[in-house]
Amino acid sequence: MVSAEVSLRELGIQLPQAPKPFGAYVEAVQTGNLLFLTGMLPVVNQKPKFVGRVGKELDGAAGREAAGLAALNALAVAKERLGSLDKVSRVVRLGVYIATSGDLIDQPGIADGASELFNQVFGPKKVSARLVMGVARLPMDMPIELEVILETKP
Amino acid sequence: MVSAEVSLRELGIQLPQAPKPFGAYVEAVQTGNLLFLTGMLPVVNQKPKFVGRVGKELDGAAGREAAGLAALNALAVAKERLGSLDKVSRVVRLGVYIATSGDLIDQPGIADGASELFNQVFGPKKVSARLVMGVARLPMDMPIELEVILETKP
Amino acid sequence: MVSAEVSLRELGIQLPQAPKPFGAYVEAVQTGNLLFLTGMLPVVNQKPKFVGRVGKELDGAAGREAAGLAALNALAVAKERLGSLDKVSRVVRLGVYIATSGDLIDQPGIADGASELFNQVFGPKKVSARLVMGVARLPMDMPIELEVILETKP
Repeated sequence: MVSAEVSLRELGIQLPQAPKPFGAYVEAVQTGNLLFLTGMLPVVNQKPKFVGRVGKELDGAAGREAAGLAALNALAVAKERLGSLDKVSRVVRLGVYIATSGDLIDQPGIADGASELFNQVFGPKKVSARLVMGVARLPMDMPIELEVILETKP
Repeated sequence: MVSAEVSLRELGIQLPQAPKPFGAYVEAVQTGNLLFLTGMLPVVNQKPKFVGRVGKELDGAAGREAAGLAALNALAVAKERLGSLDKVSRVVRLGVYIATSGDLIDQPGIADGASELFNQVFGPKKVSARLVMGVARLPMDMPIELEVILETKP
Repeated sequence: MVSAEVSLRELGIQLPQAPKPFGAYVEAVQTGNLLFLTGMLPVVNQKPKFVGRVGKELDGAAGREAAGLAALNALAVAKERLGSLDKVSRVVRLGVYIATSGDLIDQPGIADGASELFNQVFGPKKVSARLVMGVARLPMDMPIELEVILETKP
């Protein structure tokens, strides 16, 4: 089995500080062996790093990069909660919500910005099911929000 | 541990009748110790109490109030299904979908209208993970729909 | 108990080939006794069979038909993964995401196009909880995407 912690080091990825809630909720809830994360956004130090809708104020490349940053934040939250990413036995589902004013954009390609980071870190046996859609607007006008459900080892 | 039933009485909250389905589904499904609720809407007696999109036909205060009403309906469905809200061991995830025509609005603040009711009733140990987003239109033109997953005691 | 495989035959329904991923994900992930499917789209042979938004480029009848087709693809994915639909003990949750430019449309009626197929196949004891909403745009400009969580027998 691939070790996610070893993969992180080999990829030269340094996890950021896990984001903190913007409201009356927590960043992750464990129930049984499922870990539900809060919607992950492309923030750095609690501030939006990307602002605007994909296909309108931002192009697809920025959307894809924002998806990768949100995925990185998801890894940071999971690590903070579990102690080690090697406790993740599977990415169950990844939802990628893309802010759009209704323009036609390559939604699967943008979502791959998140999926590919997860796949590099967790390896090919832990690839998720996925939901992708374009929504009207996201918190603080960010372009991407991720829904993440992880399966954890006992 | 906080008793949700005691909290309800202390807060002077009377639960409404649980909403009934508008289509070919049920209001709640239990699987293992997870209770998945149907999307909860701001209805009273099966009729929309709030109509329109937040930032367009409705302002943020109305959106926040609608979120609270939808959360109250969620409590009513959970109580009807479980017999007592003290059977809820955790709010696992709360999704707050806000109807918008794309305007910039305080999405986390509106979502807190639902989160704060749950937190008052269930107490600080049972706070949920959360998804918040602005969507293009909701059933019967209502401004808010909630996704709710609860963890229940065996 | 109703046998889903018998129901399929009695209804004269032939399952299509299960869709393949359009990106870096898989079509279904099992965790414990829950099977999470990828967002199911109205495709035939990997090509969109319906294109456009409901209430704009497409009418409600097309939206309803597209929801039925996406549900049929969900059955095909579940069958491929589980070997038999009789392994499904319950449809836990069905999410119906409808692409719209914000027009007022009969969202519950459109969603019933998916729910009714599931209810015919799985019978009245396995009816799901449901989320329905109108979103700004879906992958490859398709009108419907389904979120499906199934409970499976051990």
